[in-house]
Amino acid sequence: MAGSKRIRIGVLGASGYTGADLIRLAARHPNMELVVLAASSHAGKPLAEVFPHFTFIDAPALVKAESADWNSCDAVFSGLPHGTAQDLIRELPRDLKIVDMSADFRLRDVGVYHKTYGREHAAADLLGEAVYGLTEHYAEEIAGARLVACPGCYPTASLLALIPVVANKLVDPADIIIDAKSGITGAGRSLKQNILFSEAGEGLSPYSVGTHRHAPEIEQEIGRAAGRDVFVNFTPHLIPMSRGELVTCYVRLAEGVKPDDLRDALSFAYQPRPFVKVAEKGVIPATQNVRGSNYCQIGVFADRLPGRAIIISVLDNLVKGSAGQAIQNFNLMFGLPETAGLEQLALFP
Amino acid sequence: MAGSKRIRIGVLGASGYTGADLIRLAARHPNMELVVLAASSHAGKPLAEVFPHFTFIDAPALVKAESADWNSCDAVFSGLPHGTAQDLIRELPRDLKIVDMSADFRLRDVGVYHKTYGREHAAADLLGEAVYGLTEHYAEEIAGARLVACPGCYPTASLLALIPVVANKLVDPADIIIDAKSGITGAGRSLKQNILFSEAGEGLSPYSVGTHRHAPEIEQEIGRAAGRDVFVNFTPHLIPMSRGELVTCYVRLAEGVKPDDLRDALSFAYQPRPFVKVAEKGVIPATQNVRGSNYCQIGVFADRLPGRAIIISVLDNLVKGSAGQAIQNFNLMFGLPETAGLEQLALFP
Amino acid sequence: MAGSKRIRIGVLGASGYTGADLIRLAARHPNMELVVLAASSHAGKPLAEVFPHFTFIDAPALVKAESADWNSCDAVFSGLPHGTAQDLIRELPRDLKIVDMSADFRLRDVGVYHKTYGREHAAADLLGEAVYGLTEHYAEEIAGARLVACPGCYPTASLLALIPVVANKLVDPADIIIDAKSGITGAGRSLKQNILFSEAGEGLSPYSVGTHRHAPEIEQEIGRAAGRDVFVNFTPHLIPMSRGELVTCYVRLAEGVKPDDLRDALSFAYQPRPFVKVAEKGVIPATQNVRGSNYCQIGVFADRLPGRAIIISVLDNLVKGSAGQAIQNFNLMFGLPETAGLEQLALFP
Amino acid sequence: MAGSKRIRIGVLGASGYTGADLIRLAARHPNMELVVLAASSHAGKPLAEVFPHFTFIDAPALVKAESADWNSCDAVFSGLPHGTAQDLIRELPRDLKIVDMSADFRLRDVGVYHKTYGREHAAADLLGEAVYGLTEHYAEEIAGARLVACPGCYPTASLLALIPVVANKLVDPADIIIDAKSGITGAGRSLKQNILFSEAGEGLSPYSVGTHRHAPEIEQEIGRAAGRDVFVNFTPHLIPMSRGELVTCYVRLAEGVKPDDLRDALSFAYQPRPFVKVAEKGVIPATQNVRGSNYCQIGVFADRLPGRAIIISVLDNLVKGSAGQAIQNFNLMFGLPETAGLEQLALFP
Repeated sequence: MAGSKRIRIGVLGASGYTGADLIRLAARHPNMELVVLAASSHAGKPLAEVFPHFTFIDAPALVKAESADWNSCDAVFSGLPHGTAQDLIRELPRDLKIVDMSADFRLRDVGVYHKTYGREHAAADLLGEAVYGLTEHYAEEIAGARLVACPGCYPTASLLALIPVVANKLVDPADIIIDAKSGITGAGRSLKQNILFSEAGEGLSPYSVGTHRHAPEIEQEIGRAAGRDVFVNFTPHLIPMSRGELVTCYVRLAEGVKPDDLRDALSFAYQPRPFVKVAEKGVIPATQNVRGSNYCQIGVFADRLPGRAIIISVLDNLVKGSAGQAIQNFNLMFGLPETAGLEQLALFP
Repeated sequence: MAGSKRIRIGVLGASGYTGADLIRLAARHPNMELVVLAASSHAGKPLAEVFPHFTFIDAPALVKAESADWNSCDAVFSGLPHGTAQDLIRELPRDLKIVDMSADFRLRDVGVYHKTYGREHAAADLLGEAVYGLTEHYAEEIAGARLVACPGCYPTASLLALIPVVANKLVDPADIIIDAKSGITGAGRSLKQNILFSEAGEGLSPYSVGTHRHAPEIEQEIGRAAGRDVFVNFTPHLIPMSRGELVTCYVRLAEGVKPDDLRDALSFAYQPRPFVKVAEKGVIPATQNVRGSNYCQIGVFADRLPGRAIIISVLDNLVKGSAGQAIQNFNLMFGLPETAGLEQLALFP
Repeated sequence: MAGSKRIRIGVLGASGYTGADLIRLAARHPNMELVVLAASSHAGKPLAEVFPHFTFIDAPALVKAESADWNSCDAVFSGLPHGTAQDLIRELPRDLKIVDMSADFRLRDVGVYHKTYGREHAAADLLGEAVYGLTEHYAEEIAGARLVACPGCYPTASLLALIPVVANKLVDPADIIIDAKSGITGAGRSLKQNILFSEAGEGLSPYSVGTHRHAPEIEQEIGRAAGRDVFVNFTPHLIPMSRGELVTCYVRLAEGVKPDDLRDALSFAYQPRPFVKVAEKGVIPATQNVRGSNYCQIGVFADRLPGRAIIISVLDNLVKGSAGQAIQNFNLMFGLPETAGLEQLALFP
Repeated sequence: MAGSKRIRIGVLGASGYTGADLIRLAARHPNMELVVLAASSHAGKPLAEVFPHFTFIDAPALVKAESADWNSCDAVFSGLPHGTAQDLIRELPRDLKIVDMSADFRLRDVGVYHKTYGREHAAADLLGEAVYGLTEHYAEEIAGARLVACPGCYPTASLLALIPVVANKLVDPADIIIDAKSGITGAGRSLKQNILFSEAGEGLSPYSVGTHRHAPEIEQEIGRAAGRDVFVNFTPHLIPMSRGELVTCYVRLAEGVKPDDLRDALSFAYQPRPFVKVAEKGVIPATQNVRGSNYCQIGVFADRLPGRAIIISVLDNLVKGSAGQAIQNFNLMFGLPETAGLEQLALFP
């Protein structure tokens, strides 16, 4: 039975939000045992001091990454910020399987990395080894990988909506507009004035307009699906909710294609996949449907503009957009059922 | 001095949100005296029973519209729902000035009205008389009008962002995508499950995708500015906040036009206007900046897609998007300073 | 193993919030199979039409309670409103085990019921049979019961905080003040203006001051613990969040008793219980710690007023305060591990 | 007329929330002219860079407190944190009138100050001069004062509810429990993890249980009204909303006194006051009624516990609880109408 296999888990970045959601899910995963929790700035503290909602479980105390016993682990998840992740991951024992939730190993081209993040990559050799962890599209490579680079939350929502329709040449890959909306956990746990409750609440603000770092990542994968280089519009907005992400994708239909054809292509692509569901015609996805779960819901709509369509995709940015997809990948890497530990339904209302 | 002129005001639809915000502002307007508050379903009740935040002012009790003494008024504001508004407004004394905040007199073409609202217009003769109350663009006509049809909240935000750039032929009027986001007061006070706190909170949902009734209104005015018929994409989303509205407009630049040209055209158009402010390059508008105020803020940004730009516009849907703009129009109709009673700054944080 | 036993479940009131949370948990419970979902006003609809977050599971369509095949069930959970619950429960087959989440069978005295709810009880004979389902204090009776009346959310939070200290005569049972705060799901799914997002959001209001129906229920159980009749203050407040409940209990210490003695008594009482945790000295409970989980956290504090103390208790009103505790009771009634299907950790952030 | 008198205003602490709300109100006050805005950490920046909602007004740029030309001012408001306030205020020219919104000059006894704030007072001589700025109870002293120490937000809400009933010996001053709830702006603008949107939202937490620094301030004034030293319980809770404060006061009635007697005493005390309104019997105050306004609403209720009553008081913590009351005091100090610049109604919904 699934539950009988125990895999020892380490976590890098245990004091951030993606680290926390990884721990939340790992603590109840039938095959995981948490053995190392690293969070350098909080080393020595009990986990429940940093995240009081973990007061109800037994967990190892936080340690410095440098002094952790990584050899006691079978796999490591990293919830570190980009930049820091590569510095620590390259120091890990080579026989560990690694699931990285940062941006450090997502870009396949070191030049694009350099241009996007403004620094040299400190572990360029690992870039070649890393597999892009968009589970529904790279399951086979992921199953055989040692290092998986989980997509960003926005790329996950966007690519699940767009890859099947681009790959099937149903839309023009050069005319894609992605209006993206994210809950505030997407901004992380670092202290910034604009994410204080009193400032972010009851308000709505776009950010990084025209310049967000998830755009090159989306373009990389849309480009692969299209078979050529593309640019896409990607405009993110900060929404006054903690979790949840929704992308509204505006696409131009290829000659003779109808919105229903997009829905059919998406349904066909995801019919065998447990976590992505295409909504019936007329049903509008909402983040409430997926809050706290690993599910993604996608809907297709005709546009009022002739020859265009709208694809809407929702997920929980910390689960399917981060820790949940990380575990989904881990499950494949260790030969477990893809859904192990991930079957929680949305917490609604 | 401004304060010496007293104008007697009646309100139709005093128990809805736009009615309430009209009363909030009217109660402190230097030239207004509230004499009739009509709300048929609550006739006989004190205003503070229906809106407890009015417990601090003296106000007339609510009456039925049919039995109100409209002749005691100089002007009437209507906050009724569409459909109902036309039925009651056509019965008002002809010498009253009327500012309607519903959708009933916004569409200039009775055929478009019929198609959009699925009913015959009950006061088609008044349609010809009505002036479209987008203050910044029709100030002169408004000043001479008897009946002003205030734009919807979405059209106000969208048209303020788009009319100057369309009229100056800086963008392609056939390729406009308006991704719109509104606070939940935009859905009104009628009881619906999806706007309960427990369901709308901590969530985000698109609605009326491809079918929202504000699209024809936007097209009517964009079409006038462009000098030809157009379709636009208009996709609204419900945001978990009470007030505030933001539209993200994706536009294709005309040959040789740069994003900065759009900003210049907008700045030139609104430089003399007290309530619309174009943000400096790099400054991103946010609904927090205008909450509870009559201001609108507009920003222009280069798109990552070559040849395209993004225009972002924010306002408070109940103020500049409804009751505030109604008073702005009223001020012009009665020869008062445009800003009378409307100078409140945003309530932030 | 636990997972091998399948128990067929019916749900009354499947379209309300407690019904929905029961379904959410039941769908992932290792021993439950959902076979009947009754929601009379929505009979014939798929569950996902009424609760779109259930689009990801297969579930029976909604049926009328009257026409459901209750004999296909082993146990029935009722999430019906009080009054309606008793009418339907008394019609169920006698061999079904029943877990009622309404208020109908909580009061042991039919006279108190009559006085509190203003109606005759329609199933007074079942009152005698019903066991009060505060799991931590009546586990043995619950294990042998056919009909369990789950406590209200407020009584659960209050009684878990107070019973051990009253029973041990550490506080004066005649001087207990319970200032209670609840998220808005506590008000249910019925449409009311004050729970619209636009009205309940960004605001705070007490309700039922001095008259709430949970007071007699709390007094019944405090009275049992004290060995005499008592009155308690109970003052609820509506908090702008969906889930979560916190009671701040102000108590007068018995002669010679110190706040630490209260903490010790609580720790002793709950040390063997999986879902109630007493916070260490200085740690302040917060609803964030238990959101979406079946846990309850209790803290004890010295008061600035000499001879007094403060006990603070938090839980999720829909889980430990309703559906979760219902399943906890069900687990005992069917000889399953008390924690089966209930181990989800809080969804934070 | 009121508007003709121009008073030049300086602000210390212009980059905090109380400073911002002071500026918001001052910018529209008929008699104020903003001439100095000091915010040392942001010196040199335009105000709108620190608070973008001020982009719609002309305002002086931010300067260092040390280099500001205080002689160009007639009055100074301080929104500095406690501790810092006294250091800067003692350096101001002696002929300036000063309204301090910090805690530095509220405690009349330098020993209590020392004990409460754990430091020596740096301007003890000014303590003797300062008048406690609870406008409704000290109007005469305030009118003649040079330095006014505005009460904290919690003390304002609590004292307005309690002073009249204590002074009239209607309740036992030794048995007062104040369960207080505040919006998150009450925690200020300093960066702390627990006030991030993702952590404070959808949650509720008590803080400073038994130890909050507003308790001695409340006791000082209750003691004056009672004619003897008292302790009170004061337990604050953080509520997921930006603005608003509600205190639920649990009191023991004096022999023969009824709850209606409390209401009568409060109504009598506040009948002539423009900003405090006692709710009619049965009407429950809510923070929504006063959001963004200078009003305070108070209600009285019978308790279920015999011989006890409940007094509930609401206000906006940044307005009547801080900047609004500061301006109310300023108005008295300069012989202006008490309501000048303060008549905005609540922003609801």
